[in-house]
Formats: sequence, C-alpha cells, structure tokens
Amino acid sequence: MYRQYVALLISFALMGCSTPPSEASPAAAISTLDAGFDAKAQRKLEKQFDSYLNPDNLREWMKHMSSKPHHVGSPWSKQNAEYIAAKFEEWGYETEIEQFDVLLPIPKVRLLEMVSPTRFTAELKEPVLEEDATSSVMEDRLPGYNAYSADGDVTAELVYVNYGIPADYEILERQGIDVKGKIVIARYGGSWRGIKPKVAYEKGAIGCIIFSDPRDDGYMQGDVYPEGPYRMKHGIQRGSVVDMPMYPGDPLTPGYGAVDGAKRLDYKEAPTIMKIPVLPISYADAQPLLEAMQGPVAPASWRGALPITYHLGPGPSTVHLKLEFEWKLRTAYNPVGRMVGNQYPDEWVMRGNHHDGWVFGASDPISGMVSLMEEARAVGELVKTGWRPKRTIIYAGWDAEEPGLLGSTEWVEHHKRELSEKMVAYINTDGTSRGFLGISGSHTLEKFVNEVREEVDDPLVDASLQERLRARMMVNGSKYADRKDLPIGALGAGSDYTPFLHHAGIASLNMGMGGEAGGGSYHSVYDSFDHYTRFMDPTFEYGVTLAKSTGRVTLRLADTDVLPFRFTNFVDHVTQYAKELKEFAVEIREKTKHNNTLVDQNAYSLAAHPDKTYVSPIKLDSVPLFDFSPIDNALARLRTSANRYEVALTNNIKKGGRPSGDEAQNLNQILMKSERAMMREEGLPRRDWFKHMIYAPGLYTGYGVKTLPGIREGLEERKWDEVNLFIGEVAAALNRVADDLDRATSLL
Amino acid sequence: MYRQYVALLISFALMGCSTPPSEASPAAAISTLDAGFDAKAQRKLEKQFDSYLNPDNLREWMKHMSSKPHHVGSPWSKQNAEYIAAKFEEWGYETEIEQFDVLLPIPKVRLLEMVSPTRFTAELKEPVLEEDATSSVMEDRLPGYNAYSADGDVTAELVYVNYGIPADYEILERQGIDVKGKIVIARYGGSWRGIKPKVAYEKGAIGCIIFSDPRDDGYMQGDVYPEGPYRMKHGIQRGSVVDMPMYPGDPLTPGYGAVDGAKRLDYKEAPTIMKIPVLPISYADAQPLLEAMQGPVAPASWRGALPITYHLGPGPSTVHLKLEFEWKLRTAYNPVGRMVGNQYPDEWVMRGNHHDGWVFGASDPISGMVSLMEEARAVGELVKTGWRPKRTIIYAGWDAEEPGLLGSTEWVEHHKRELSEKMVAYINTDGTSRGFLGISGSHTLEKFVNEVREEVDDPLVDASLQERLRARMMVNGSKYADRKDLPIGALGAGSDYTPFLHHAGIASLNMGMGGEAGGGSYHSVYDSFDHYTRFMDPTFEYGVTLAKSTGRVTLRLADTDVLPFRFTNFVDHVTQYAKELKEFAVEIREKTKHNNTLVDQNAYSLAAHPDKTYVSPIKLDSVPLFDFSPIDNALARLRTSANRYEVALTNNIKKGGRPSGDEAQNLNQILMKSERAMMREEGLPRRDWFKHMIYAPGLYTGYGVKTLPGIREGLEERKWDEVNLFIGEVAAALNRVADDLDRATSLL
Repeated sequence: MYRQYVALLISFALMGCSTPPSEASPAAAISTLDAGFDAKAQRKLEKQFDSYLNPDNLREWMKHMSSKPHHVGSPWSKQNAEYIAAKFEEWGYETEIEQFDVLLPIPKVRLLEMVSPTRFTAELKEPVLEEDATSSVMEDRLPGYNAYSADGDVTAELVYVNYGIPADYEILERQGIDVKGKIVIARYGGSWRGIKPKVAYEKGAIGCIIFSDPRDDGYMQGDVYPEGPYRMKHGIQRGSVVDMPMYPGDPLTPGYGAVDGAKRLDYKEAPTIMKIPVLPISYADAQPLLEAMQGPVAPASWRGALPITYHLGPGPSTVHLKLEFEWKLRTAYNPVGRMVGNQYPDEWVMRGNHHDGWVFGASDPISGMVSLMEEARAVGELVKTGWRPKRTIIYAGWDAEEPGLLGSTEWVEHHKRELSEKMVAYINTDGTSRGFLGISGSHTLEKFVNEVREEVDDPLVDASLQERLRARMMVNGSKYADRKDLPIGALGAGSDYTPFLHHAGIASLNMGMGGEAGGGSYHSVYDSFDHYTRFMDPTFEYGVTLAKSTGRVTLRLADTDVLPFRFTNFVDHVTQYAKELKEFAVEIREKTKHNNTLVDQNAYSLAAHPDKTYVSPIKLDSVPLFDFSPIDNALARLRTSANRYEVALTNNIKKGGRPSGDEAQNLNQILMKSERAMMREEGLPRRDWFKHMIYAPGLYTGYGVKTLPGIREGLEERKWDEVNLFIGEVAAALNRVADDLDRATSLL
Repeated sequence: MYRQYVALLISFALMGCSTPPSEASPAAAISTLDAGFDAKAQRKLEKQFDSYLNPDNLREWMKHMSSKPHHVGSPWSKQNAEYIAAKFEEWGYETEIEQFDVLLPIPKVRLLEMVSPTRFTAELKEPVLEEDATSSVMEDRLPGYNAYSADGDVTAELVYVNYGIPADYEILERQGIDVKGKIVIARYGGSWRGIKPKVAYEKGAIGCIIFSDPRDDGYMQGDVYPEGPYRMKHGIQRGSVVDMPMYPGDPLTPGYGAVDGAKRLDYKEAPTIMKIPVLPISYADAQPLLEAMQGPVAPASWRGALPITYHLGPGPSTVHLKLEFEWKLRTAYNPVGRMVGNQYPDEWVMRGNHHDGWVFGASDPISGMVSLMEEARAVGELVKTGWRPKRTIIYAGWDAEEPGLLGSTEWVEHHKRELSEKMVAYINTDGTSRGFLGISGSHTLEKFVNEVREEVDDPLVDASLQERLRARMMVNGSKYADRKDLPIGALGAGSDYTPFLHHAGIASLNMGMGGEAGGGSYHSVYDSFDHYTRFMDPTFEYGVTLAKSTGRVTLRLADTDVLPFRFTNFVDHVTQYAKELKEFAVEIREKTKHNNTLVDQNAYSLAAHPDKTYVSPIKLDSVPLFDFSPIDNALARLRTSANRYEVALTNNIKKGGRPSGDEAQNLNQILMKSERAMMREEGLPRRDWFKHMIYAPGLYTGYGVKTLPGIREGLEERKWDEVNLFIGEVAAALNRVADDLDRATSLL
C-alpha cells in the first residue's frame, strides 16, 4: 500500500520546513554505538553480515513470488506465505504461520457507462503488453477496484471535485455547486484515496469515481509503460478505501484479533466500510467523461494534463455506476520467524514487510520483502557461526496489508498485551527502489538511525548513505543540512508500522530506498518483475543496501547493552510541533478576523465577477486564545531530563564501562517502554483506536501525519474544547516520559 | 502588442509584494482635486463629459476598423488613420497625419518541416471558422510570423528550451545539453518573445521556433475558440522579435525620426534585428515535433499541456526551417489631433493608443482606440458648449506599434526637444476588456490616479472602481489593501508609453480594464469583432468606463491650477526598490557562498543521479559589499522635501487660495519636468536609448520592468562596477528631483 516515494517526499518536506536544528545538547554525548558495544567488534560483525548478502537471491525470490497474483485469499498468497516460512525455517528461525480470517470484498459486477450526453462504456481493463510477461497472466487476477466500496447501482450527473478533500468542496461551494445526489469524479492524489469517497458521502454524493490523471501519474511525469516506467493510459490504481484513519485492520473486528470465534460485526454495520460505491479508473476511461462536462472551468490548480478543458459540472455528463461485491472472509497468512535471544529472550526486536500485493506486486511489496528475507538469511548465517543475539529477533511477512493493514493489525491486536511488555521496537519496510535511504519513525531513535546511515555506503556513488543525503539536502538548500543528525520524518499511516506505533505505543521505524527511480506501476498489473528490473533497481544493489541498513538497525537493537533511545532530538521535534501549533492558532485567528471583516464590508461580493455565480463565505465564530503553557512547561522539564540522561550515560560509561546485569536490564526496560508513555488509553476524538499523543495520520489526509494530533485537529475542526483538552493530554504524556527518563537516569 | 491581462497581473503582483505602505506623510494633505480646482464645478463638468459617452459608437467604430487586416503598410491601416483623423477633425481638433517610413519585413517563404525521424510539414495556417466572420477575409492578411526574424535556411536537431530565458539554459547546461548548431523550440511565456531568439543566438543556436503551449495559452486555460475565448489548436501568436530592450522603434533610425532624408542603417547592420530565423507556430504544429523528441525528460515546471512527455533532446526530431522576407520600408500614419489650450497652450497633455493590428486586431488595439476616440469626441462636445481646456490636449493614434512601437517612437524621437519642453504627461491605453481598472505608471501621479479611480463607478457592480479593486485586494489578502492610495505598477516596455517615459523622461500612465475576461485571441486572426463582442466586453460598457477614467485624468491634467504631481508615494516606492536591491545583494552573496561551498565539498556530484549526465556548477567570484548610503541619504532628503512640499501646498491653499498667474506657471513648469530630472543622458549600460534611472524594461525580460535598473542588472549580470556606478547615478537623480521640489516649495 505504501508508496516509497511519497514517504521520501514527506521526509524531505519535513527536512525543509518542520524540523528544528538541535538545540544545544550536552557536548560530546556518547554515540549509541559506543554506549552499547565494543564498537570495533560490532563493526566487524556487521561487515561479516554484509558479506553474506547476495543480490541474486533478491532477484530469484522476486521472480518467483511475483509470478502470479497474490492478494489476500489467493492461492499464491498462501503459497508465498509458505515459501517465506520455509525459508525462515531453513535459515534457523522458529517459524509459524499465524492466520486470521478477515473480510475482503471482491467485485462480481463492475459497470461504468456514460448515458448522456453521449454514450460511452468504460473498459476498466489493463491490456496485455508484449514487453511485460506477467501482464498475460489472468488467473486469480483482481480487476481494478477499490476495496470496501459499497455495493451500489446509481445514475447521476458528474461533478469534478479535484482531489476531493474538504478544501476542494469549499471552492465548489463558492461557485454554488452542490454534490448532493451527484456522482463525484476525483483525481488521485492530494490525500489518501479513502478520504475522497468519505468526504463525498459526507457532502451528499451518491457515488465516487477516482481516476489517475496524467498530470500526477502518467505522461506528464515521464515516458509511459512499456517505453518508460510511468502509468500508461489504461493503467488502473487499485486500492483500499476503508476508513483507515478511524481504525485499520479487519473492519469486522475493531481492536481485537480476527481469530476463530471472535465477535464479528455485520459488514453492513462496520463503520469503516464506505457508504457509497467507489470505482478507480484509468485516464483513458476518464477522458470521455470529463470531456463531456460543462459548467464553470475548474480553478487553475485543479486542471490535469488531459488535452481538454476541465469543467466542474454538474453534468451534462451523466453516468451509470453499478458495483456488486462478494462479501467474504478470507484467510490472511502471516509467516513469523523467531531467533530467540540468549540473554533477554523476552525483549523483542521485530522486522516486518507485507507479502500480499494487489496483483503481481513486484515493487509493492516484494522488493521490500526480498530485502527483508535476505537480511534474515544473513542473520541466520551469523548464527551458524556461533554468534547469537542477546534479544529475540522476529521477522514477519504480513498478509492483507493492501486492503488496510489487516495482517499486521490483527496480529498486533491479538498479541497486544504481550507486545506491550516485550517489544523493543518495530522496523518496517515495504516497496523499495533506488537512491537515498529515507527513514521516518520515532524521534527517540533519530540519533541511532543517523549513526547507522553513516556506516552504510551507496553502491554506486563513493560516499555513505548519510553523506549522499546530506549532499542532496545541501543542494536543495535545506536549512537542516548542517544539523548533526539529519531529521527523520514523523509517521502517519500507510504501512504496517501503524498498529505498532499508533495503537500499541511501540517505537517504530520505516525505512526504504528511493528518490532516483520514478514510476507509475503502483497498484496496477504492471507492477511486475519486468517493470521492476528495467526501471526500479535493476541490479538489486539498492535492495542489498537496504538490507545492510535495516540489518544494522536490527543487530544493534538486538545486541546492545544500552538501548539506543535518546531524547534530546525528540524534544527538539516536539518543541517545533508546539511552535507550529501556536503559529497555526494565530493564523486561523487572524484569518477568521479577516474573513469576518470581508463579510462585514461586503468585499467578497464586490470582488466577484458580476456575471458568474458566487456564494460569499459566512462569518465564523472567533478563535479564542489558548494557554499553551502546560506544554511549554512539560517540554522544559523534558529537555532537562533528556540532557541529564545524556550526561549521566556519557559520564557513567566513560568512567566505569557500560551498565550490565540487572542494572542494564532495568534501564533497558524503561527505555524500551518510553513510547508507551506517550499513549492515552482513551485515544483521540472520534477514533479511540489511535492512542498516540504525538503522532497520528490525519482524519482528512489519511497517510499524512498530523503531529500533536489532538490539538492540531481541534484547531482545524474548530473544536476549541478539544484544543484545551489535548494541550493537557500532551503535557501529561511528556511528563510521563520525563518521569521514566528520570528513573532511567537514577539507575546510572 | 500589449497584453492587458499581463499588465494587470504585473500590477497585482506589485501590490502583493513590491510596494510599501505609505510611510507617515503629513496628515490631511490636500487632495489633488482640491489643490487644483473648485471641486464641485469640476465634478459637474465631468458628469457632463460622462453624459456624452455612448457605447454604440465604440461598437460601430470597432466593427468598421477591424473589418480588414490593418498592419502598418496595409491599405486598411492607412484608411483607419484617415478615418480617425477625419473624426478628430469633425470633433473640433486641429488634425494632421504624421508619416514615417519604417522597415517592416513581410514573409515571402515560410517552411517548417520535420525531416527525421518521421516526416511532417507544419501547416502554419489558421482555418476559417463559421462563427467568426472575418476569419474568411484573406486579402492583405499577414501570415503567422515573427517580425525582424533573420532570413535563413537551416536544418538541425531540436532542443526544447522551455521559455528560452537565461535561467533555462543553466538547467540545460547541468544536464550537459548544448544548443550550439541546433534549432531551439521554446514555448511562449516567461518573457517577452524577443528574448527567446536573442538568448538562443547568444548560446549558439541557428534557428528558433516559438509555439503556443495549451498549458499557458489554450485548452488548459479554458474552452477554446469558437466554443470559448481561448486559443484553438491552430491559433498562431504573431509578434515582433526586434531587440526592443536595446531600443524600440524603426531598427534603421535609432534615436531619431524616420523621416524623409534621415540616415538609415543597412538592415543587415541594424543591431536590433535578430541574427537567426525565428518562427511562431500553433500547438497543433508543435505536437508532432515535440512528440518525436528524446533525451532527458524535461524538468517538471517545463512540461506543457500537450498529451505527451516533454523531452529536452537534442533530437532525434530534426527540422528544416526556411524563412525569406521582403525587407521594405512602409509608411506609418499617425493621426494626431490637438485641442489647443486657452491659457497654457504650450503645456501639452497627451493621450495615445495605437491603431495598427497584426491582423483584424479588434481587441488589440481597436478596443482601446475606440475608447480613446469616444473620449476625444466627448471632450469635443464639451468644447462646443463653450468650455475650453487651459492646456493643450492631444489625441494620437499610433501606427506600427506591433512591430516594435515604431509610430510612437519615431514621433517622440522626431519631436523630442519640443516634447521635453512642453509635455506635462502621456496617458496610454491599448487593448482593453472588462473587470478592474489597472493602472501603471509614474509614481509621482499615484495619488492623483487613485483619486480618479474613486470617482468612476463600475458599470455592473454598485461600487466605484477603487472600491472594487480594494475589495479584490482584500479578498486576495494583499497587505496593501488598507493603504490609502492603492499602489500602481511600474512601467516596463510593451506599449507606446515606452519612448515617452524611458527615452524622453515624460511622466506616463498606462490604463486599461481587465481581469474578468480571459482569452487567447492575442495576435491571431481570431482577434476579431466576433470574438470581442462575445467574450471580452460585449456591451462596451467597460470601454465607456475606461473613457470616463482616462477622460478625467486628461481633463484634470489639462485644467488644474496646480499639476497633481506628488512625491511622498514616489519616495515610498523607491525606498522599497532600494530595500529589495539590498536584500538581493545579500541573497546573491549568500547564494554564491553556498554554491562555492557545495563545489568545494563535491556535494553536487554526490547528490546527482549516478546514471544520468550531470555537469556540476563551477565556483563563482564572491560578491563584494556595496555602499548604498548615497541612495539612503538621497531618499532621506527627498522624503523631507516631499513632505515639505505637501505641507506648504496644503497650508498655502487653505490660507490663501490656489496659486495663479506666473506663480502657478512657474510651479507647474517645475512639476511637469520632475520626471526629466530622473534621466541620465548617457543612458543605461549596453543600451543608451533607455535613460530613466528608476524604471526600465529588463534586458532579459523585455516587457517586465526592472526598477533601479542600472543597479539591479549590475547585480544580475555580476558587474560590480556598474552596481557602484549606478548607486551614484540613482542618488544623483533623486537629488535632482529634491532640488526641483525644493524650488517648487519655495514658490508657495
């Protein structure tokens, strides 16, 4: 589900604007490597680990696993799960396949036709291409559809709603256009796709069509397949539209595992299933519909790259959309392999990548899966030499990620109590390509992953991954290019870290290579072995480089004497988030005032074109002043605590060596649970599954993160009571972290 | 030549970012109306003037004048000149037609064909449309071409250069692409068109094709003709590519009038004529050429709206471009009508609009011309009632504006000495449509034109033009929406004010209605009566509104006892320009440092895609510190002088009535020549025809203004000696203005 380049963009955007340079933290704080290891010995072990990695394995496994459609419930998905499990077993892991029975609707009827002003029936098909071997494999193939669309049979005029996010509807309202009783047509992009039908339904639309516009995803981006990697005119982006920002996972079993005998909602009652029919289409199918539309010309930023003038409607294009699904439980197979630690077997370091794809899924997710497998194999090789991790390392291949993170979410929900006790950290990967190592995740691990990125070299450029990324930030003029630790992005939703971080409070990372291979195969049949090996990472050298990086993260977490959680960078980031929110409050206060002045002075009407329909905005309730001091105080306290921990740790190790025995275990127990302290059991408003007070996916962005979400969405939704409530909740969370940290310091 | 909406955009852009709010000027300074008039009587006269204005006249005259092609040298251009002259005569003006013999090349051969990888011959034709009556008129029609292209017969591979401005070539250089010996293909936009072949030639290209991309000018903007107003696929934008930023007017007679017996350069020696062949084409003709290109994909911002992937080349598209012109002198006819003043006959207020078009030219220029004519008729009606202006009012219809401001420039050059003595101000119009009253010009008249804009009402909205514009600025969030005087834009080049302002130092204004009628008929055969009356100003009410506005400006300038030049706003603007330049110097100093650091650290190479050609930038000479204090001192002094003038004028009038007799005449003589004090006889570097120290069109923007141009272009071109020289020259100019103003104050 995850789009590697989206995440990279997010992380670069953050580098550019949302992350602070380090405030002075204690000089010469000890590195996480030196705090936990004999650095020389550890580096030697890692070189040995590297020596086992072989790109040919990645190629062979990808070719096999992506040879047939392997969505959850398909025979090949089960086969892949068994294939992965057999490998884990072979490499020395205690392996089992954990199963969950989850809802996945599959289409029985898909019909989209324009009935007026002319007739046209959408093809909804991706043709066979000579250059792409698997494009001719038809057995078990899922057609283009959006999972968890409603059944429906509707006919109505079209309204073009741009990306279909709330801000777009405000613009439509200004022009007097209402989608009530209409079918909206939205282009992909601007938000996670599930937001589009959700907002459309909230606004009264009775159907939703989502198309890939060649401006965002097609010939305007680059040469199209098979000449180049970009989306060709018949390419369809499948994908889930389940209401994931409410809760991910099986829609029928919110908050608990979808195991035998679990209580299941009726699918008609499940709150995350869409209430209207939704269908994704190619730009070849979209063009006739859009071309027949009339009404006002779409605003400049709404116009795509089809060779037509984009109009808003409504109509005269009138379409008939008919969708029927088979609503059935399917079995998700999660192969899980454990290398039990010899010193702290009940401290778990987990790596995961999903194995299900929408069709052949070579890039998404097999490219990441095979990198994980090669990492697991190399760890197995190390074990064969007599080495063994101190902590337990777990490798998982998740099923049913694509429909909405079902495999990982059910697993986390089912094991939540145990995970809460035992999990040190979860490290996710997903589709990966080539270029730079993008990392997002818990900022308590920011310093740690920066150290790792410094120690892995780019396979083609004579520099470390860190040096290349820093060079790129310098060239892009990022003001954080000089920061000792390059900022990592915050995590929203979009891949399997979601239940770990947002529901269970487990420190998480998401890692992948990207930025130097564009493409448009995402969720189409053309996400194939042929496409991947021509355009994405032809030699699999970057796949191996990812394994070197995630392998180091895993090995160090599993073997260190002192877990590498550090808090000064975390305080930097949260301070910046709080600053942004204060500024945001000022901004909406001033915008509200400005709007009300304009209404009072009749300026909107005076400025409007006298011959065009224009509906002036109305007056808004004014924005009160908020007291952010609880957060400021908590941050000040946490900064002191974080600095004291750095000083104590550094001095302690310099003087007396690393903590060990009970002392070390007690310290590590506190550190590994620090993310748990950031959770609020009651969760966020309108979605109690999401419990993290620092990060959440946006209610109306989907993938995109909202930091300090309770406060931020309170401001966005103009719910002033929530703003005040969550200022307190965030401050309390920060104080809990400081409490824990002070206890940790006192152990040193 | 002038694009109304471009000018409006420029003026709004300035409102948004380049113009300062007024610094405190003396409280309750007297209005320019009250300073010069019995306000009540003057308003009554203006109401009477309004009552004569009749939109039917505009319609009738436009229909007649735009019925046949009327470029300079055509029979219908002569006919139109005589038609205008006859009207002026009939309305009571002393009228003559002043003639100049100027060079206008007309094509004999136009051939553009792709010879490889496939064959294609460009049509270069605009088809007849049933909905557009004049589109079938073929006699005397100029085909699509760029005036002052070189003759040429060249065959070479294509390189796509985006807008073809210098910054675009830097991006090509980074990718290792050289245009030497190639033919460049550039899209219209981003600069005045003449910049494109000039830069291409400087970079070694042997030919230049310019096309209208539907992203900027076609279906992406709105419905295309004849369904809507925008450019259809065969529409061609004609236009001049003479090197106007060097000098406008007849290329053969730089700096003096092209009259009988004048010394003329050989056209092969004329420095403003392009050295390579240039041809404008439609997007229908461009698509096959662009589609056949290969090489790197163009950067995102370079991609247009054709349904293809844009590549940079070179080739494999190889084209054969053959152009031959008839290089002949043609006669330009400028009808000029004078209403001699009864009190100050040797103080002239001049209005002008060109009458030549590229083909039928209904919008450009006839829409402005007929508004000017109706204004002149109404002034004539006033005279018939016994009123007569104190100063001489002159109305002119310029010929040969399209090829490069030839009619007006030759006239100004020929009469320069007399104009310098007698001209109070020049007020230009050109093509006009509907919406808001956009004004650019000399900032010494900013307060004055704001007062005028307050007194004219929008014909469709119940508000003054000033109120509507202010409302729009409020809605757009302009920080100048609250400024008492809304900022007016600075003038670059692009219409007939150019020789008056930039060469002769005459205070100038450019006025037009726009912002609520988009379109793409510009310089095509479809700039027709049918197009104008369907889409631009169907009722001609906005044309009448423009006449009310320019009429007030003219009447007040002609009749006031105290000319309405005021200097506090001027100081505000120049202070802002100086501030921008100081910031710009800091910016390029820091960018230079940053670039040199990146080169030293090898960051460009490390950040580059390892499999793509990339040429790193080189180190640049560092940017010295500049001493801006001469300008700061001169501005401080001028602010004091400006404030003292305001106080003296206000007090004087409040106490003793308005100046009169010799006192008034001496005062007005100083005021009307204040713009002359801003000139430097030696002109600007590399173009001594442009003599204004505050404003100039950019050497590499063409239409777009560069303020404090000697300094700004010194910084841009990294000529540090010029920066220092022009800091002194600007300061000297400002001191001359202050000297004059102090003399004026001493008269009060």
